Amino acid sequence: MTLFETLKDRCRDEWQAYTRHEFVTALGAGALPLAVFRDYLVQDFHFLVQFARANALAAYKSRTLADITAAHAATGAILAETELHLRLTERWGIPRPELEAAAEKQATVAYTRYVLDAGMAGDVLDLHVALAPCTIGYAEIGAHLAPRLDEYGGDGDGGGGGHPYGEWIAEYSGPEFTAASRAAIEQLDVLAGGGLTDRRLDELTDVFRTATRLEIDFWQQALDSVL
Amino acid sequence: MTLFETLKDRCRDEWQAYTRHEFVTALGAGALPLAVFRDYLVQDFHFLVQFARANALAAYKSRTLADITAAHAATGAILAETELHLRLTERWGIPRPELEAAAEKQATVAYTRYVLDAGMAGDVLDLHVALAPCTIGYAEIGAHLAPRLDEYGGDGDGGGGGHPYGEWIAEYSGPEFTAASRAAIEQLDVLAGGGLTDRRLDELTDVFRTATRLEIDFWQQALDSVL
Amino acid sequence: MTLFETLKDRCRDEWQAYTRHEFVTALGAGALPLAVFRDYLVQDFHFLVQFARANALAAYKSRTLADITAAHAATGAILAETELHLRLTERWGIPRPELEAAAEKQATVAYTRYVLDAGMAGDVLDLHVALAPCTIGYAEIGAHLAPRLDEYGGDGDGGGGGHPYGEWIAEYSGPEFTAASRAAIEQLDVLAGGGLTDRRLDELTDVFRTATRLEIDFWQQALDSVL
Amino acid sequence: MTLFETLKDRCRDEWQAYTRHEFVTALGAGALPLAVFRDYLVQDFHFLVQFARANALAAYKSRTLADITAAHAATGAILAETELHLRLTERWGIPRPELEAAAEKQATVAYTRYVLDAGMAGDVLDLHVALAPCTIGYAEIGAHLAPRLDEYGGDGDGGGGGHPYGEWIAEYSGPEFTAASRAAIEQLDVLAGGGLTDRRLDELTDVFRTATRLEIDFWQQALDSVL
Repeated sequence: MTLFETLKDRCRDEWQAYTRHEFVTALGAGALPLAVFRDYLVQDFHFLVQFARANALAAYKSRTLADITAAHAATGAILAETELHLRLTERWGIPRPELEAAAEKQATVAYTRYVLDAGMAGDVLDLHVALAPCTIGYAEIGAHLAPRLDEYGGDGDGGGGGHPYGEWIAEYSGPEFTAASRAAIEQLDVLAGGGLTDRRLDELTDVFRTATRLEIDFWQQALDSVL
Repeated sequence: MTLFETLKDRCRDEWQAYTRHEFVTALGAGALPLAVFRDYLVQDFHFLVQFARANALAAYKSRTLADITAAHAATGAILAETELHLRLTERWGIPRPELEAAAEKQATVAYTRYVLDAGMAGDVLDLHVALAPCTIGYAEIGAHLAPRLDEYGGDGDGGGGGHPYGEWIAEYSGPEFTAASRAAIEQLDVLAGGGLTDRRLDELTDVFRTATRLEIDFWQQALDSVL
Repeated sequence: MTLFETLKDRCRDEWQAYTRHEFVTALGAGALPLAVFRDYLVQDFHFLVQFARANALAAYKSRTLADITAAHAATGAILAETELHLRLTERWGIPRPELEAAAEKQATVAYTRYVLDAGMAGDVLDLHVALAPCTIGYAEIGAHLAPRLDEYGGDGDGGGGGHPYGEWIAEYSGPEFTAASRAAIEQLDVLAGGGLTDRRLDELTDVFRTATRLEIDFWQQALDSVL
Repeated sequence: MTLFETLKDRCRDEWQAYTRHEFVTALGAGALPLAVFRDYLVQDFHFLVQFARANALAAYKSRTLADITAAHAATGAILAETELHLRLTERWGIPRPELEAAAEKQATVAYTRYVLDAGMAGDVLDLHVALAPCTIGYAEIGAHLAPRLDEYGGDGDGGGGGHPYGEWIAEYSGPEFTAASRAAIEQLDVLAGGGLTDRRLDELTDVFRTATRLEIDFWQQALDSVL
């Protein structure tokens, strides 16, 4: 059993509430109000900026040239994803200045700063456990929603077909994100180094549970934005 | 004009929404539901623990023995306040194990981790600006609510009289907290060192505004806990 | 076997070279040139200032109120030791302004900033392992040199007798410092939580070895100051 | 006058001692013993690894996507320089495993960890001022030594001609490093934002002076390696 599976197992209810959240279900069914999705996209931009900082923090925290190089590549991947995201939001009618001027909402601040603080105060394993609900969870959600693309006449080329949020689903169920998620799962085991004491596992469970709860709040924040 | 006044002036709406929040008004009128106050006390415990960490961070960030010593004393004051808080919550019927086991809610995580990250990523002035809505704002709120104590037959000895939340009001309007708030205002000006560029002032305004917004969310979180 | 004994065992040569350094032997024999001791005292002042910062860092890095409180007390102990040190140096004819104006030398910067960076990049166990050669090593050196006090007519009251460096030996062989050293040994085992993977032990050995090497350099720096 | 010129002016003696150090003069004259140069190369490898961490720290400390992206690019440039360095050292007969196994010496630890701590405890301007003696100083040294290449029959193509250390001189006097140095000078002025208080300038001067002193120690360490 991988460390990720152990953590997921210990936080089963929170994980379920996160990966099967009403936001996710509605997005998959194409029934998510556009205003909700737009609010999500704006906050997700701020999220990505802070996640780039979190990956830079991992590079700072590395002990070897190989680990610095890997964390640097991960930061580059986030920056590239942010560029993609900027093009996507522009297509959805949110101009970049509006995006950058939008205030970070509470759930955005809570999750991103929690990750950064857990990673700074703890070690690089704490940091990656705090990032896991995002890195690994989004791939799980993508895989879960991918069949919905076919229902909308997706042509199997990853283009998203006629699904209103097909591009989003295609990105997170695509081969690149799936491979990144698998690598993240393996990295947790490498960092755990073949064994953890009970106390250490409790600490990491606490970090994983809090981060997962904050992901739930992040979905909910978007739903609440149109109330 | 002190730096604090400048910041407050630039964030007038947020400051008003924070210091005159419905939670504050109801608390002053003795009309705040007890369940709301208890929820607040539980979260405020977690808040104080993270604020002790933030003051320890200020000690780490100091350049001189005098500054380390001052930040160490401030950490000690927070730890003492936390002990008082633990006695208060026990009297309000919340046993310590329950307090420590309670999960940190979203607004608690958001404000505390924002302060810690702003302080770590920025310099010691960013840190103190992020702390200001708490350190200085609570004294302002305490002074604003103090007259309410008399209405409840407060006897002027700071004991809180018959007001249901008299002890809370007495603490934050008392001479010790008032002096600490004045010292915090002065320290901001010392740290600003006689001048700030426009860009720096914009950065600090951004930190102050975000921290104030997160304080509003902290009051609201308690009100929402009984919905 | 405690973690400390394991680390000492793995770095036997460096530990010997540090705790039985020519500086230590000459100090014990009362044969250390006064100019060397004075140079050491000046640099040790800067050392203590940075060590107070390192203990504040431990408080920032703590996960529980109990750990924050313990680290806060440790910072307070260092600040108190620094005050003692300031009185000692003044008696040895080094006025405080001269002390504070003296530049930090290379070995002082190397050891103190190594500890701070190892602690920030790693976790709180890395930090305490980096501090161990100082915290625990000085007590070992004190115990080793204590018999020298008797030779100089020490009266057993810890006053240092007629030994030129008796006050220094008395401090580091005294009950307070000895107890602090024992507590530090126990804390390492508590933090290691009953077990470490081989890779983790290798990382910690690397930190311990480097810190011990930098302690050797610190003694040598004082000896070299009169060349 | 740029901030860099101001700092250089305030630390004129240290800057001269660093950029005109015996190591530099001997290297330029082709008279540096090969064993000294090899010792320098080994330590410079460790130096670059820590400098990559310092640039990752700058990315973590950034407030905007543009600043994160710029710091990320700078980290990438250091990692690329490290790869070049690894090829260079292999050509000079130092196999990579030997390089990685070599202990970091005192002056290497002192400079690199000083930069990392100054940057973590201060803000991003402190970090860049601490990096300046390296980033900008090496370009100044390269420009000063470039004429020596011609004396050795350099053919103007930047290849280093017959000079024993021509490749090193060519790299640091080349257009890429020169441009990076100019960008670093400009960035200091951007970060200073059009003005600094006297106290802030004193703090930065202290950081710049210490970093420059530690660069002097770094040259000296290589010279001393063959004593």
